[in-house]
Amino acid sequence: MDAVIKVGGSLAENPVELRIFCNKLSEYAQRYDLVVVPGGGRFADVVRDYDRDFRLSSTKSHKMAILGMDQFGLLLTDIIPRSRLIRTFKNLNKRSGGGEMRILSPSAIMFRENPLETSWEVTSDSITAYVAGQLCAEKVILVTDVDGIFSKDPKLHSDAKLIPKISAQKLLSLSRRTSVDLFLPKLLLKYSLSCYVVNGKYPERIGSVLSGGEVPCTQIIPRSHPTI
Amino acid sequence: MDAVIKVGGSLAENPVELRIFCNKLSEYAQRYDLVVVPGGGRFADVVRDYDRDFRLSSTKSHKMAILGMDQFGLLLTDIIPRSRLIRTFKNLNKRSGGGEMRILSPSAIMFRENPLETSWEVTSDSITAYVAGQLCAEKVILVTDVDGIFSKDPKLHSDAKLIPKISAQKLLSLSRRTSVDLFLPKLLLKYSLSCYVVNGKYPERIGSVLSGGEVPCTQIIPRSHPTI
Repeated sequence: MDAVIKVGGSLAENPVELRIFCNKLSEYAQRYDLVVVPGGGRFADVVRDYDRDFRLSSTKSHKMAILGMDQFGLLLTDIIPRSRLIRTFKNLNKRSGGGEMRILSPSAIMFRENPLETSWEVTSDSITAYVAGQLCAEKVILVTDVDGIFSKDPKLHSDAKLIPKISAQKLLSLSRRTSVDLFLPKLLLKYSLSCYVVNGKYPERIGSVLSGGEVPCTQIIPRSHPTI
Repeated sequence: MDAVIKVGGSLAENPVELRIFCNKLSEYAQRYDLVVVPGGGRFADVVRDYDRDFRLSSTKSHKMAILGMDQFGLLLTDIIPRSRLIRTFKNLNKRSGGGEMRILSPSAIMFRENPLETSWEVTSDSITAYVAGQLCAEKVILVTDVDGIFSKDPKLHSDAKLIPKISAQKLLSLSRRTSVDLFLPKLLLKYSLSCYVVNGKYPERIGSVLSGGEVPCTQIIPRSHPTI
């Protein structure tokens, strides 16, 4: 498995860009062994709102949010050419000859195995890393609507600086919500996974990350390093 | 089976009222043989928005909307005392000794059987009637945030009049979206089901409908009648 790629729900806010991205992703699936994990999209926002209104139990809101990933997966399979939904690890591991893009519909696996804690610190980022760990993928690519992880929130601060490389250990010590969830670095360390946070508005950056090239993004490396 | 009750997602807009309603519903489950079908809540609105943005295939948006019912069912089972989620007709038919409220999580049945057309004319109202038909329920109760079906949209027209009784045939001939979906009357005719559209802001009205009393609501009768 070359990479497990999370397609963040925020990309759906620009339908034209998401379609362009999905077409490109379908091309990459011809060359690379890839699995897509859907984000929660606006469905996850609705779960957060209901959770606030009703103070739901964490197991219920967690399941509701995972169903949101199933829903966004249905959307993605409608717009990624030559794609299909997959519900088991066994089938995720089977690469078809035609370079079909496999999209995980995560509820079946996550409801049965319930491998992660049920809190808002675990979102589709962590689920993607968990899936990549199970599939022994080389890379985790988290596709979002910003260039990577910044020194500050780039949507609020114009002087925020892109962090090109950070260790999972360092990310863990930040203890603040960045463009990735709080639990993610623990899983990257556990499975020793290299992770890239990449802007989906520039689909060719995904291609560069897959081929090992350099592009604006944040690489999270799964070990301590004296300088990063 | 005394009744299959749809709890409309619009009730979640007022969390306090929905909690009061859910407590009352749990009491009724002690006395009556009931099944709850969840509405789609705000999740269905998100599906409609994505459907508009991406022009999704009807099978995909239909499935996404049904997952929205699963999500709202998770919310309901968190706030209806002594309730649990059920995924099969066999278990829906089993009334427990303790008067536990059974809440349908519809995706398993609906994805497997796919018994209804996949369009926005089929919403959780029609799915509730389908389930009631399969369970040979005596009544279908659609709980919403208005008193029933009106001569005009009561949220737009102050002179709208509540229709206390209407035949399914007449409702079908209206050919306009009322507070229930367009496909519903066809299923009420097919399964010969009596249906009540009731305002959940007054939970005792559900009790009156269950006991055969008269309350402000709309009764849809499953046959032609010379005067209604």
